[in-house]
Amino acid sequence: MAPTFQTRVDKILKARNSLLCVGLDPDPAQFPRSFRSMSRPVAARRFLEGIVRATYPVAAAYKMQLGCYLGLGPYGLELLARLNRRIGSTRLRILDLKANDIGNIMRFYHGAAFDQLGFDAVTITPWMGWETLEPFVEDPDHGFFVVALSSNPGAPDFQEIPTPRGALWQAVVTEVKRLAQKHHNGGVVVGATYADAVRVARQLLGNEFPILVPGVGAQGGALSTTVREGVDARGRALLVNSSRSILYASRGPDWAAAARTEAERLSGQINQLRAGLRTP
Amino acid sequence: MAPTFQTRVDKILKARNSLLCVGLDPDPAQFPRSFRSMSRPVAARRFLEGIVRATYPVAAAYKMQLGCYLGLGPYGLELLARLNRRIGSTRLRILDLKANDIGNIMRFYHGAAFDQLGFDAVTITPWMGWETLEPFVEDPDHGFFVVALSSNPGAPDFQEIPTPRGALWQAVVTEVKRLAQKHHNGGVVVGATYADAVRVARQLLGNEFPILVPGVGAQGGALSTTVREGVDARGRALLVNSSRSILYASRGPDWAAAARTEAERLSGQINQLRAGLRTP
Repeated sequence: MAPTFQTRVDKILKARNSLLCVGLDPDPAQFPRSFRSMSRPVAARRFLEGIVRATYPVAAAYKMQLGCYLGLGPYGLELLARLNRRIGSTRLRILDLKANDIGNIMRFYHGAAFDQLGFDAVTITPWMGWETLEPFVEDPDHGFFVVALSSNPGAPDFQEIPTPRGALWQAVVTEVKRLAQKHHNGGVVVGATYADAVRVARQLLGNEFPILVPGVGAQGGALSTTVREGVDARGRALLVNSSRSILYASRGPDWAAAARTEAERLSGQINQLRAGLRTP
Repeated sequence: MAPTFQTRVDKILKARNSLLCVGLDPDPAQFPRSFRSMSRPVAARRFLEGIVRATYPVAAAYKMQLGCYLGLGPYGLELLARLNRRIGSTRLRILDLKANDIGNIMRFYHGAAFDQLGFDAVTITPWMGWETLEPFVEDPDHGFFVVALSSNPGAPDFQEIPTPRGALWQAVVTEVKRLAQKHHNGGVVVGATYADAVRVARQLLGNEFPILVPGVGAQGGALSTTVREGVDARGRALLVNSSRSILYASRGPDWAAAARTEAERLSGQINQLRAGLRTP
């Protein structure tokens, strides 16, 4: 039997000894100064390939926001496929799609993300209802992360609405656990900007179900709480994403070295926090 | 002063004497039989350009689902831009993006939809909170349609959650009206599959704010209720979308004629229903 998505995540986190997810979100306005004379596609490709090379030793996963790549024009999609081939299957490749549509259209997103672009997992949002997630829920070979509690200031508008099962985002976490029971292919996105949320999410999920945490770094979420409360009993099942603080650590000629240093620093800090959990 | 988005919508609906929005959602598995030998990009281009030509006289708007175009690979994005140039500014061009992300990323979607791809409006979903919609809310030159009540069976899971301002989707409609007050650039998506919802949405919105209604046709929504209850006092501010029932009316050599006939039939029926409103 093929390993489940959750088993694959666990193997990767263990083999890499890392929980770091590097967010590859190209913003041409923030590229290194020396890239200014290049065309946008060339600059994006060189920059992102440089970032992958610099962070590869300490990255367990890479996450790409679709919006940033659409902004690059048709080449953006070629670049996504190219980066995924480069990264290979020893790291987790996540398309941050936040897809949400009727089932018929979700099947197209499913095909594009996995067959066309070569990702291992996607993020999705639940606004249009649980049945819309079916093309992802029923796929034992790829993963899905449902955005339960996002890291932005407006997150509470919908996600904190009270329901009989707790705040709406908590009901989402519980339902994802139920949906992923069959193929062990699901997880949740929970922002680091809300204290205590990662702990509650882990309590609701139990072991093995992965939590993807954005908002550490540029968005100001607390790393120590995230790691201490977010890992499962094995000290894994957690992906801590950082995008801008790594990618744009320097705009000078040392941009790649600065990205590597920041990725190493963050990954090292995460591992120290994990190690601290094992000593009483 | 430049006309607002809502004024532009109204001018187009009036000039075209139509409320019909044709959903250009390419599904290669359903293309005409004679297209089977063509490469996917060639087939998609020829088919969609044929559909635009066939439906142009009676279409007020065209709506493209991003997912379907991602499924075509990088060429999908070129095709979107090409179709928009063909369609031109006498019809409304809507990207069905259902975008939802942090503000930083929403700005990338905004740039891609309007600057790169040449759309006039997008659809967005509100799960991550109201502030995330800002890049669209603050743009006086383009429109946004917020998915309030979708047309699929799972829509009630989130959208019908009770709140102090009524069902959650109704609170969404009310909030969109408030957000679009400044630039008159917003509207809502309300499915035709839920009886009475279109009437409630129009009541909450008053005149001028456009309602985009999917789910007529293949999804089985009731046309007469939609039109009678959905138009504003001028008999406009409503876009009735049909995708599959027009695009795939025939898979034989008469596919273009069949699409035209179905578009004419639907647009004619809508206009009859509108005309009926004026006679007591």
